[in-house]
Amino acid sequence: MTDDSRLTAAMAEVADRIEKTLTALLPRGNGPEARVFEAMAYSALDGGKRLRPFLAVETARLFDVPDSRSLRAGAAIEFVHCYSLVHDDLPAMDDDDLRRGRPSNHIEFDEATAILAGDALQTLAFEVLADPATHPDGNVRADLVAALASAAGAQGMVGGQMFDIAAETAGAAFTLEQITRLQRMKTGRLFDVSCQAGAILGGASEAERAALAAYTDALGLAFQIADDILDETGDAAEIGKQVGKDAAAGKATFISVLGLDVARDRARSIALQAVKVLECFGTRADLLRQAAHFVVGRRA
Amino acid sequence: MTDDSRLTAAMAEVADRIEKTLTALLPRGNGPEARVFEAMAYSALDGGKRLRPFLAVETARLFDVPDSRSLRAGAAIEFVHCYSLVHDDLPAMDDDDLRRGRPSNHIEFDEATAILAGDALQTLAFEVLADPATHPDGNVRADLVAALASAAGAQGMVGGQMFDIAAETAGAAFTLEQITRLQRMKTGRLFDVSCQAGAILGGASEAERAALAAYTDALGLAFQIADDILDETGDAAEIGKQVGKDAAAGKATFISVLGLDVARDRARSIALQAVKVLECFGTRADLLRQAAHFVVGRRA
Repeated sequence: MTDDSRLTAAMAEVADRIEKTLTALLPRGNGPEARVFEAMAYSALDGGKRLRPFLAVETARLFDVPDSRSLRAGAAIEFVHCYSLVHDDLPAMDDDDLRRGRPSNHIEFDEATAILAGDALQTLAFEVLADPATHPDGNVRADLVAALASAAGAQGMVGGQMFDIAAETAGAAFTLEQITRLQRMKTGRLFDVSCQAGAILGGASEAERAALAAYTDALGLAFQIADDILDETGDAAEIGKQVGKDAAAGKATFISVLGLDVARDRARSIALQAVKVLECFGTRADLLRQAAHFVVGRRA
Repeated sequence: MTDDSRLTAAMAEVADRIEKTLTALLPRGNGPEARVFEAMAYSALDGGKRLRPFLAVETARLFDVPDSRSLRAGAAIEFVHCYSLVHDDLPAMDDDDLRRGRPSNHIEFDEATAILAGDALQTLAFEVLADPATHPDGNVRADLVAALASAAGAQGMVGGQMFDIAAETAGAAFTLEQITRLQRMKTGRLFDVSCQAGAILGGASEAERAALAAYTDALGLAFQIADDILDETGDAAEIGKQVGKDAAAGKATFISVLGLDVARDRARSIALQAVKVLECFGTRADLLRQAAHFVVGRRA
């Protein structure tokens, strides 16, 4: 098997198992409230590459953590990711009608249901982490909750989204430093907590956690630059969401600041950085290294 | 001091200390994301009677838990309550311009900011509970997170809100049993977790937790019937929010099903039930008993 096909197979395996985990964790029932259960499932299932759960599971494997635990942690992080997409697509936010090639949650259901489904997906994430099935030691569970809350909250993902709205208003006046900070908050922190969750489950040392933090910092930036490139040059049908919206909105992106060619080079060199910082894990971290190249080379 | 004035003084004391706790826990900073910090503070501070934190602190005192711990748990529950009000007021939900006598969050800021502020208030709730300052034992912290998530999620508060939207669509066709179930989910579960948080912090026995659950079940229903009465007969200036909206929307409420007089009697008899189930705690639970009468008699 080539490196590429090994990674593809490993990601597909985790995506398949995460789908089953998410399905098992989603609420079920028949009352009048069941509409919100359906809306949660609509936006949590059949979705995306499941890159964050893959990072959680693959990092946990470095420490011989059973997949049954890391799949739950990965599912919790994926629920947060999915909730953020549901809320970001709302008319008052990015106003996107299309997500993963299907109508956005508020188009398929309605705005009120989409707001509630996002809210409940976030709650479910913390419920899953706090459950003894995730780890028998309450201190580990509480650490997972604290790490995810810090990554997802006002000084993490949500703060980044607020920052992004400000960036849209400010147009291209943002500096590279500001865009980098924005993306670290908006997307970087959730990548980071994916690997940190594996490390927390595995009782990693400070040095190991620092190496993983350096890895996800580079991975997140490379991912976001690639995302901006896809928004500029990608095909809507292949990506499954609208493209060219950032440029049309005059939004500051890595492309608007660096230009397309420099941005491409930058993404590749940052991916190389991500590969290097994992030295302490030897060949066991090979799939994580390949994932860094994958996020830069992806076409959707 | 009369019973009434003792309760008023005790509630004012907790409200004052909860205000300081909430203030200390809210995020601060100057970046472009600071707008969401301001919006969070706008809807979390200077607000309401702080009944849920009072229940948490007062229950914790039954078990000699230091207030420093129960104030944090109460603050977390209050953050969830405040997030739910911010999202409920949105145009796609109840479309309320007025809350606690001031413009709603999305009127004072804007819809996108209000959605994000609500999201981040929820996240902050779990971050506070998972912090070792809330309790040194991780198992206790994880239990608090699990209890709050269960109460707030798709099968609790958010499910109740979804149910309520369905009730609005269905008009007055709902039965008393259905309205009761709706209110147990929408408001009852958050009252319940307030007392349960005190019980979890205090290592309460199963029997003690069951007594507290019976108490909050009655308290929550009495509270909601009183709320429906206030919506029908109250004064908007005194309550600080719009009144008469439920009737205008043809929404099923305790009043539409029972009529005003029967509803008043029912609220009083349920409050008496709440008082009785706390026998096992003796006179130490007197303030909780008085709180049950207070929720029925309140005028705002």
